[in-house]
Amino acid sequence: MQLPKRAYILEVGPRDGFQAEKAWIPTERKIEIVNALSKTGVPAVQVTSFVHPRAIPQLADAEEVLSRIERVPGVEYRVLVPNLKGLQRALALKPDKVHFMNSVTESHSRANANRSVDEGLAQIEEMYTVAAEAGVPGVGGMACSLGCPFEGKVPIQQLEKVASRYVEIGIREIGIADTIGVADPRLVYDVSARMLDRFPQVTWSLHLHNTRDMAMANVVAALQAGITRFDASVGGLGGCPYAPGAAGNASTEDMVNMLHEMGVETGIDLDGLIAVAKMVQEVIPHELDSCMVKAGKRTDLKPAPSGQQKIGQ
Amino acid sequence: MQLPKRAYILEVGPRDGFQAEKAWIPTERKIEIVNALSKTGVPAVQVTSFVHPRAIPQLADAEEVLSRIERVPGVEYRVLVPNLKGLQRALALKPDKVHFMNSVTESHSRANANRSVDEGLAQIEEMYTVAAEAGVPGVGGMACSLGCPFEGKVPIQQLEKVASRYVEIGIREIGIADTIGVADPRLVYDVSARMLDRFPQVTWSLHLHNTRDMAMANVVAALQAGITRFDASVGGLGGCPYAPGAAGNASTEDMVNMLHEMGVETGIDLDGLIAVAKMVQEVIPHELDSCMVKAGKRTDLKPAPSGQQKIGQ
Repeated sequence: MQLPKRAYILEVGPRDGFQAEKAWIPTERKIEIVNALSKTGVPAVQVTSFVHPRAIPQLADAEEVLSRIERVPGVEYRVLVPNLKGLQRALALKPDKVHFMNSVTESHSRANANRSVDEGLAQIEEMYTVAAEAGVPGVGGMACSLGCPFEGKVPIQQLEKVASRYVEIGIREIGIADTIGVADPRLVYDVSARMLDRFPQVTWSLHLHNTRDMAMANVVAALQAGITRFDASVGGLGGCPYAPGAAGNASTEDMVNMLHEMGVETGIDLDGLIAVAKMVQEVIPHELDSCMVKAGKRTDLKPAPSGQQKIGQ
Repeated sequence: MQLPKRAYILEVGPRDGFQAEKAWIPTERKIEIVNALSKTGVPAVQVTSFVHPRAIPQLADAEEVLSRIERVPGVEYRVLVPNLKGLQRALALKPDKVHFMNSVTESHSRANANRSVDEGLAQIEEMYTVAAEAGVPGVGGMACSLGCPFEGKVPIQQLEKVASRYVEIGIREIGIADTIGVADPRLVYDVSARMLDRFPQVTWSLHLHNTRDMAMANVVAALQAGITRFDASVGGLGGCPYAPGAAGNASTEDMVNMLHEMGVETGIDLDGLIAVAKMVQEVIPHELDSCMVKAGKRTDLKPAPSGQQKIGQ
């Protein structure tokens, strides 16, 4: 099995994870969690989203969180910006990068952002220019790249169209998002290989949800195709509005554990990361989808029992 | 991504799943579930274990379950037999195959079965002969093949030793078991490729637990190495005594979904299987680790909404 030696994790829990939580998470807790994540060795954190507070009340404290976190040198602090107003709010606080997001299907673009795919791309072009003038690079996400809740399978041409426009705009870092958690490893392999081949100038990443328990398999498939950058969410925070109660984003600690077990370095301290996931569990009123929190590491050996045991195969 | 066209699922929920449940499952419910599984197209079901009732009270009704299920032609009905007494109880009811299990590490063999690896193999040789005389083939499982709760990593030589003895005994179907759910995809690939190469006369299968969310990734790795047979447990039933509260066995419906999504046929009706998992949920007093039960299939499309939506990226 050929795998790259190194993978890079973008922690998105404070944005994609927290925004899925209905119960208010106090701003102090959000700041503590971002600060704790910063110390695990994770190379980048998506801190919040500058979305309208009425759309996502949980992230109404975006300014306060971004302005009050301790920025650790070497860690990139990124934020999602859904529109020009949000971008302007974000730029005032100098994030390291801003994330734009556009759906690759018309129906999801309308449902999620009340705009067509082309309208979204035009808005992103405008935002990219404003951010670039402020010296902040823009990253492009492609929602529903691997499946749409309304349209089902997505022709690769729709990904290529959005990616081409992103590249024309000047974007050089693009994320393929499995927004609703339907991608299988073969699809991930094929799409990853195709996009790497078609757009060699782009730094590609993958945004996975574990909705149907394929996130870890999809990480391995993407690594085999040559993608080494992954969004992940501490504690497996996150969710999907089309599958209430389902598993959330790919869990950072489960992903880091698997990568390390396979000999793929991440630079992340897994023990520290599991400790942060346990801290997250204390502020979230439901059980996390985190295997490492529940099961612990492989190397947490048990003492061998002595004396007679019952036979229970 | 090169994958075989077909995979074979051995449903082990009624044995490995039920035995992990503390609360008594009425015999009638067990029989209904085995009967329902039989109609999904699954090629084989591990119906129960003829273990001593004091060791696993949940399976004290092994005789009644095996004798009262409706056997569907084409489905193999298998049972686990931990010792000669259990084998004799089983053979009276003519299962299609009997499963033996031996740990590949000394400390787990002692903890689980109060015997050394060699003592276990000697007992299995005796059982194999008795079963063969009754016309019932014996299958060999290798517990802790991919990691031991007491010894950690397991040298491949220990697997080869047990497999060699199994082959000498006459066994031609062997299962590599990740009993405690610690295997990563690279290890699974390497071990699978090695065992296929070293023992070409053996039909190999893989028994996975999803304790650390790597089961589905391990299925893909094993398929890439050439193993096409997998144990799986409806509803993700099962567990690990060394990780209370952790995820259970690899879920049959999640595995079948992934295989079908990748174009790997199983012959199993996924809708029927999800319906059985929901039936299982009704008799189990905790939430199942089943993504397909919670999230549904990719093809369960939503109606596209109309009218203005809030922007919530």
